[in-house]
Amino acid sequence: MMSEKKAHDALDRRSFLRASGLAGAGLFATSAPVLSQQGKPDPAITDVQDWARNLGPGVVSSPYGKPSEFEKHVIRRDVEWLTAGKESSVSFTPLHELDGVITPNGLCFERHHSGIAHVDPAKHRLMLNGLLDRQMVFTMDDLKRFPGRQNRAYFLECAANSGMEWRGAQLNGCQFTHGMVHNVWYTGIPLKTLLDEAGVKTNGKWILAEGADSSGMTRSIPLDKAMKDCMVAWAMNGEALRPEQGYPLRLVVPGWEGNMWVKWLRRIEVGDQPWHAREETSKYTDLLADGRSRRFTWIMDAKSVITNPSPQAPLKHKGPNVLTGIAWSGRGSITRVDVSIDGGKNWRTARMDGPSMPLSMARFYVDFDWNGQELLLQSRAMDSSGYVQPTKNDLRQVRGTNSIYHNNGIQTWLVRANGEAENVEVS
Amino acid sequence: MMSEKKAHDALDRRSFLRASGLAGAGLFATSAPVLSQQGKPDPAITDVQDWARNLGPGVVSSPYGKPSEFEKHVIRRDVEWLTAGKESSVSFTPLHELDGVITPNGLCFERHHSGIAHVDPAKHRLMLNGLLDRQMVFTMDDLKRFPGRQNRAYFLECAANSGMEWRGAQLNGCQFTHGMVHNVWYTGIPLKTLLDEAGVKTNGKWILAEGADSSGMTRSIPLDKAMKDCMVAWAMNGEALRPEQGYPLRLVVPGWEGNMWVKWLRRIEVGDQPWHAREETSKYTDLLADGRSRRFTWIMDAKSVITNPSPQAPLKHKGPNVLTGIAWSGRGSITRVDVSIDGGKNWRTARMDGPSMPLSMARFYVDFDWNGQELLLQSRAMDSSGYVQPTKNDLRQVRGTNSIYHNNGIQTWLVRANGEAENVEVS
Repeated sequence: MMSEKKAHDALDRRSFLRASGLAGAGLFATSAPVLSQQGKPDPAITDVQDWARNLGPGVVSSPYGKPSEFEKHVIRRDVEWLTAGKESSVSFTPLHELDGVITPNGLCFERHHSGIAHVDPAKHRLMLNGLLDRQMVFTMDDLKRFPGRQNRAYFLECAANSGMEWRGAQLNGCQFTHGMVHNVWYTGIPLKTLLDEAGVKTNGKWILAEGADSSGMTRSIPLDKAMKDCMVAWAMNGEALRPEQGYPLRLVVPGWEGNMWVKWLRRIEVGDQPWHAREETSKYTDLLADGRSRRFTWIMDAKSVITNPSPQAPLKHKGPNVLTGIAWSGRGSITRVDVSIDGGKNWRTARMDGPSMPLSMARFYVDFDWNGQELLLQSRAMDSSGYVQPTKNDLRQVRGTNSIYHNNGIQTWLVRANGEAENVEVS
Repeated sequence: MMSEKKAHDALDRRSFLRASGLAGAGLFATSAPVLSQQGKPDPAITDVQDWARNLGPGVVSSPYGKPSEFEKHVIRRDVEWLTAGKESSVSFTPLHELDGVITPNGLCFERHHSGIAHVDPAKHRLMLNGLLDRQMVFTMDDLKRFPGRQNRAYFLECAANSGMEWRGAQLNGCQFTHGMVHNVWYTGIPLKTLLDEAGVKTNGKWILAEGADSSGMTRSIPLDKAMKDCMVAWAMNGEALRPEQGYPLRLVVPGWEGNMWVKWLRRIEVGDQPWHAREETSKYTDLLADGRSRRFTWIMDAKSVITNPSPQAPLKHKGPNVLTGIAWSGRGSITRVDVSIDGGKNWRTARMDGPSMPLSMARFYVDFDWNGQELLLQSRAMDSSGYVQPTKNDLRQVRGTNSIYHNNGIQTWLVRANGEAENVEVS
């Protein structure tokens, strides 16, 4: 491990260049136009490539477009030993292949409890029942005619994201340690609009959200949250919801654990107490060291992860490099992310780029020079409530290691001298 | 055509409901939970659907996800008589099927001059030559190591968008009249960073951007614009550029006509004057009534269109309805959109929802009740420079009808009593 002084110097060289007005000058060796950086003729420059010689396929080749064949490795992945039953399973977003703050629809992680329901929107209904002035049923067409349609970007994180890490560094890649999160623009209407339409009786204090798939997914949500910012959404990132994200209708519960964002939403019941459904008793509760369980731990606390470099995205070059990652908080917006290259001894504030919206993912960067030294990379998010992302050990002291939920501890990647990275913990 | 008074009343009923505290109450007929709005048992409610009875496919079924089979009509389309040669052709974004402000990658319109180049990123190079201190060549890896990576949302509009409408209402659907625009988050680095790295000589005043496809696409851009906000981008909406959008590298020229956003970008040359390339002389110039041509008309002026209702998206129900559309300006952000339902006699300010970012698309809504009257729908955008979108006739008085470019005139849809809409003009 390098010394603190060296680590500090490595991260500071770039800012020195900036301060002295040299930023952008001489980052790369000068090269003559037809020579590679190694000084040899580069056929990628000197040869006329096929695509510059021949007509390509026309517009009718893909009425709905797909990624380049050279991007075939950019896919959701599962973990064989974790998801043996494919219908009740998980796929993970390839965070290390993405940038910016929006997750493309085709790469949003999945968590199914009975596989993907392929619902015909013409046959889909949303029922409102329980402690209401009027029991009501809406078609998809009805919902799209309500006033007050809105667009909001929110992160959605599974409560079990990073859950395998409670007992130590286990999964080697941010796709697997942190890939149960995505960030999407939703279009829909406030749930409040529907509840107001039906008229909540004064003793109504909770809602139950129910999905139309065969898992019978149900979750209880306090009425206050339902009225505050929950949405009934039919579009993501501009187009209809994807089947695996609840097409044609899903509940959006901003900042709260993903399991509550009921997919294929078919019913909202209003009651005077929670329902104590399977997914809020046997599952999605946090077993503490003394055998008691925390329940109704809905809010996803501030969290961050460095996506590049990481085990699936090693450093390939000495010299200038871009470190990047993502941060999010269920309590507000991300106000700052600090990065350490020495396992948390020294920190510097990362540069944020892209919008910082409440309950939405933020993107950070550190531009740095790498001299081939070992790095112990960490990131630490802060949110607008003043909350600071804790270490994993801090969390374990309070919550023990029995749970698989709500692990928002600081992640460490060891980057070796050959550039390869590994999931490790520092004490 | 209804009277002005009636038109005004129709649009104002919703705001009346709001003012009187009745908004959200009684928008739809009350229905018992198992009855349809018509009072008959609704099998969509009373029957257990297949998807609630059976397990669906698991996560491995689509490592890169696709839209629902029920959304197969949501595709880019071409116009047969307009795009006979498929390689040099156009496809249009289905604006009437989208919402929010971001265009999904699979639906971004295409304009190719030699078809889609399928470029191997390992063999792609970006050359900087001309009036520079150092001639340089970069690999994709090099570009991703530069400091200052950024994320920006920008609209891209083809200069010929709405071009068929100069001579009167021709194409029946906003996909075809306005579908050569999309709005995307780009990730990349400022072009300024690369130009600074190479060192622009004092007599360098213009750049030439060149694409790697077989069309030999080249455009001249003033150095001031190149240094101000142009980007060299490799990602769109979080993931790698799509092949039809210039994978692996495209130039981003915010607010300026789409043809200048050179795809498959392989070379930037710096010179002391423009190159007068084919695409800025024979094409992408605006032939005026007197036979002279406007040249270098780069900026896309403020424009808007109502996407719903429109010819491809008729009104289906009387009573509450949501009118929506998009607006954008190459001179700043959209500050306001007005909507008329009587062909421009009376206007009311639409509600904006979603972010209003500079040189990026904005979304507007009008929640209204429709009593089955005929409507002459128009929208009129205003931007942060104070510019107001003109009528088509205003434009024709100044520019004649010879051109196919830069038609940002106000669009009119006639909505008939049966809800169907048609592209018309009002004098």
